[in-house]
Amino acid sequence: MADKSEKTKARLPRGFADRSAEDIRAVEKMMATIRSVYELYGFEPADQPLIEYTDALGKFLPDQDRPNEGVFSFQDDDDQWLSLRYDLTAPTARFVAENYERLPKPYRSYRSGWVFRNEKPGPGRFRQFMQFDADTIGTPGVAADAEMAMMMADVMEALGIKRGDYVIRVNNRKVLDGVLEAIGLGGDDNAGRRLTVLRAIDKLDKLGPEGVRLLLGPGRWDGGKEGEGDFAKGGGLNDLQAEAVLLATARNEQAGQESSVSANAVFQEGVGELSTIESLVRAAGYAEDRIAMDRSVVRGLEYYTGPVFEAELLAEIPNEDGQIVRFGSVGGGGRYDGLVSRFRGEPVPATGFSIGVSRLMTALKNLGKLDSADVIAPVVVLVMDRDTTSLGRYQKMVSELRGAGIRSEMYLGGAGMKAQLKYADRRGCPVAIIQGGDERAKGELQIKDLIEGARMSAEITDNAEWRAARPAQVTVAESELVAEVKKILAAQAEERARGK
Amino acid sequence: MADKSEKTKARLPRGFADRSAEDIRAVEKMMATIRSVYELYGFEPADQPLIEYTDALGKFLPDQDRPNEGVFSFQDDDDQWLSLRYDLTAPTARFVAENYERLPKPYRSYRSGWVFRNEKPGPGRFRQFMQFDADTIGTPGVAADAEMAMMMADVMEALGIKRGDYVIRVNNRKVLDGVLEAIGLGGDDNAGRRLTVLRAIDKLDKLGPEGVRLLLGPGRWDGGKEGEGDFAKGGGLNDLQAEAVLLATARNEQAGQESSVSANAVFQEGVGELSTIESLVRAAGYAEDRIAMDRSVVRGLEYYTGPVFEAELLAEIPNEDGQIVRFGSVGGGGRYDGLVSRFRGEPVPATGFSIGVSRLMTALKNLGKLDSADVIAPVVVLVMDRDTTSLGRYQKMVSELRGAGIRSEMYLGGAGMKAQLKYADRRGCPVAIIQGGDERAKGELQIKDLIEGARMSAEITDNAEWRAARPAQVTVAESELVAEVKKILAAQAEERARGK
Repeated sequence: MADKSEKTKARLPRGFADRSAEDIRAVEKMMATIRSVYELYGFEPADQPLIEYTDALGKFLPDQDRPNEGVFSFQDDDDQWLSLRYDLTAPTARFVAENYERLPKPYRSYRSGWVFRNEKPGPGRFRQFMQFDADTIGTPGVAADAEMAMMMADVMEALGIKRGDYVIRVNNRKVLDGVLEAIGLGGDDNAGRRLTVLRAIDKLDKLGPEGVRLLLGPGRWDGGKEGEGDFAKGGGLNDLQAEAVLLATARNEQAGQESSVSANAVFQEGVGELSTIESLVRAAGYAEDRIAMDRSVVRGLEYYTGPVFEAELLAEIPNEDGQIVRFGSVGGGGRYDGLVSRFRGEPVPATGFSIGVSRLMTALKNLGKLDSADVIAPVVVLVMDRDTTSLGRYQKMVSELRGAGIRSEMYLGGAGMKAQLKYADRRGCPVAIIQGGDERAKGELQIKDLIEGARMSAEITDNAEWRAARPAQVTVAESELVAEVKKILAAQAEERARGK
Repeated sequence: MADKSEKTKARLPRGFADRSAEDIRAVEKMMATIRSVYELYGFEPADQPLIEYTDALGKFLPDQDRPNEGVFSFQDDDDQWLSLRYDLTAPTARFVAENYERLPKPYRSYRSGWVFRNEKPGPGRFRQFMQFDADTIGTPGVAADAEMAMMMADVMEALGIKRGDYVIRVNNRKVLDGVLEAIGLGGDDNAGRRLTVLRAIDKLDKLGPEGVRLLLGPGRWDGGKEGEGDFAKGGGLNDLQAEAVLLATARNEQAGQESSVSANAVFQEGVGELSTIESLVRAAGYAEDRIAMDRSVVRGLEYYTGPVFEAELLAEIPNEDGQIVRFGSVGGGGRYDGLVSRFRGEPVPATGFSIGVSRLMTALKNLGKLDSADVIAPVVVLVMDRDTTSLGRYQKMVSELRGAGIRSEMYLGGAGMKAQLKYADRRGCPVAIIQGGDERAKGELQIKDLIEGARMSAEITDNAEWRAARPAQVTVAESELVAEVKKILAAQAEERARGK
């Protein structure tokens, strides 16, 4: 096994990540808060497996019997194709369709978990990431969409994001659909071009209107100038068509635009639904600084059929790459009336919202909202003698500390005292317990205050300060162990609270 | 999309499960308790991705360039094989090997997550299940193994399992290895036969000594009689060899046995380590009713190299199939000194423990230890009028209730009042709020106590009881909404506490 010539290389596959203790704790804290808001709104936890039939996810390539390249797929022993889920919405739709009769309707549920994309990884782009969704299924009225927007605003504030530092933007896919129909891009034949338009509009923030105009029309070079980067094929819209699309998706709607397509029924339906949503959220006390109607929100996914939303952080903080920017989207969603009915053969209206967990966690960490200073490293009992009797005695000390609820451990490595103190330092341990032969003979032990010890050697420069400091090491009777450790931990907690 | 003839069948792949809200809550509660014990012992959270290189998991078929059939595998776009992890230990070993220099040593971590087995599913046997592990890596001494056993005993009691209802059994793989060596089954040539012996011994509880004796020797028919069921090939041990193995793994060690192999060094080392573990746990106050030395514990996995442990529930409660039985194993682990060194080319000793989350949750539920009665369903505001102004008014009521921390929702479906009350009943809602045109005109609303209502119609038989009961419905001013709902919820909580 330990033959160097044959050893296996320990390496993480591309696009996957190990998570640090700090990040895990931060995510847990954040998710507990999100969960409490979802629960307050009456949603129930749900959970589907990570593997589904590829056809249930709707992820076969058009006209081919092979799964889409964007999903991780493999064949079961009965030759059926299985895939790892690429979001939480598709498995939810499968679950609801399969259990439709026995579920209360509307069915209100939330779920979190890992999803997978078989795509080229890049900085901040992973092939496994976590989402935290809420969905209301079986309700046609836009009151359910209004509720999603309000709940997301409440989630942001529950996480400590100040009003003004976030906004939930709401639009309706029907508004754009109506415009597209009015300019001659309706019908099944134009489905591909409509998707190109959606994806172009989704880049408005990044490219600006002129960049998007190129994507709508003749196409665009990634680098911005001819020959720079890859060429992205355009949607082939003419100038008038492109102008209509840009007008319809300008952040603040244009009165002029409305008239030119106002006869279109889908457009009118979209505008009407948006107005209802606006009335409902305002009536519930959510002003424009929290929930804004915004025609520029389209969401790049094909399956949305009505209202769409996006949660955006307005604060300028470092992103995953360390650049200080307006942070942008941390989640989004919309109405997907077609996903459950795909299985049922009857209309099953549905709306939902998805939070990108890692991205939101990065933002909250950079906003200083996920402090983990309340997690204290363990007290460590050093091992001075290694015979079984001594180990038993150290073990008993640890058991007593744990019995008093004090996080602690016996040093379990093979190293000497200096290395043991280095280990305690690396872990950030607050206190070390030391009992060698001399102390044992007297029934005593030494308790080392590692925080005070570090502070003294770093800061204290004159004798007066030295005398005023609390001792970095005390010798006490064995029976005083728990009481004395508690005293030191309390003093350290007080100093932390004072911001020392 | 909604064409019946083309609809996709909504179905779960074999061996996978959707989880209910109740089970999710139960698992979360249970895992929070386990986590608190792991933290108390000084372990830190860690997390690896669900996908690893197949070779890093050590899961290629012997002499073949294809992954083992027991794991879900697929090729990346660079043709390298990836697999879903089948346990948490192999990814942990990869992570530690890859980050060895920067980790504190010993490295003490815990992790939970889904693991996958590409095996034939059966009742209670899933292809995706959750484990919750703790590992100490970089420590050769058996004090680390003793700590694992103690921590698991503490986990059991923290979960509310009474002393006497569980036991942590400890053995040492070296004891059996020594016996096998002494009876001529040592060396690389006999690796296959040793694995057959391990797997046979692992069935002691199920088959008893005589069944295992057949598996060690000539083989055994699954049905117990010739020709019944499948034939399991035996290890080919002769009677004396089989007897020696059975003696060595009898629950209470036999004095006679010791002498026959006492000259074997591996055997002696194993016995010595077991005795050290026993001294350490006894010194820390763990008696035989919590941690028992037990030669019958071997664990079926090849990679254990020293101490092995098993957490067993002794209580007779229903298992996953509803049979009332001595529940059996809910977790186990052991020392795996070879797994990290496989990558490092140098010895890296390690020991760990894994809890089977679903199995333990089933046991705890059946022991009544995962009560979720503290989760109250939402208060529901019924929708009597559907115009936007009315919806806005209902929405405002819900917002007020939520603002007071009361879990609540506006009914979002399309149904009439009777169906809305049925929905409330199905969700188990405690209270319904009703405001039609008449009440609105007077600035009032009705509050329906659904729990009391149900009780009254079910239980109350005479007029005296009727008068003594609290009213099932009250009419109050709009401004009294929150105060009145709080009063009713408090009364319901009091009745629950009285066990009414």
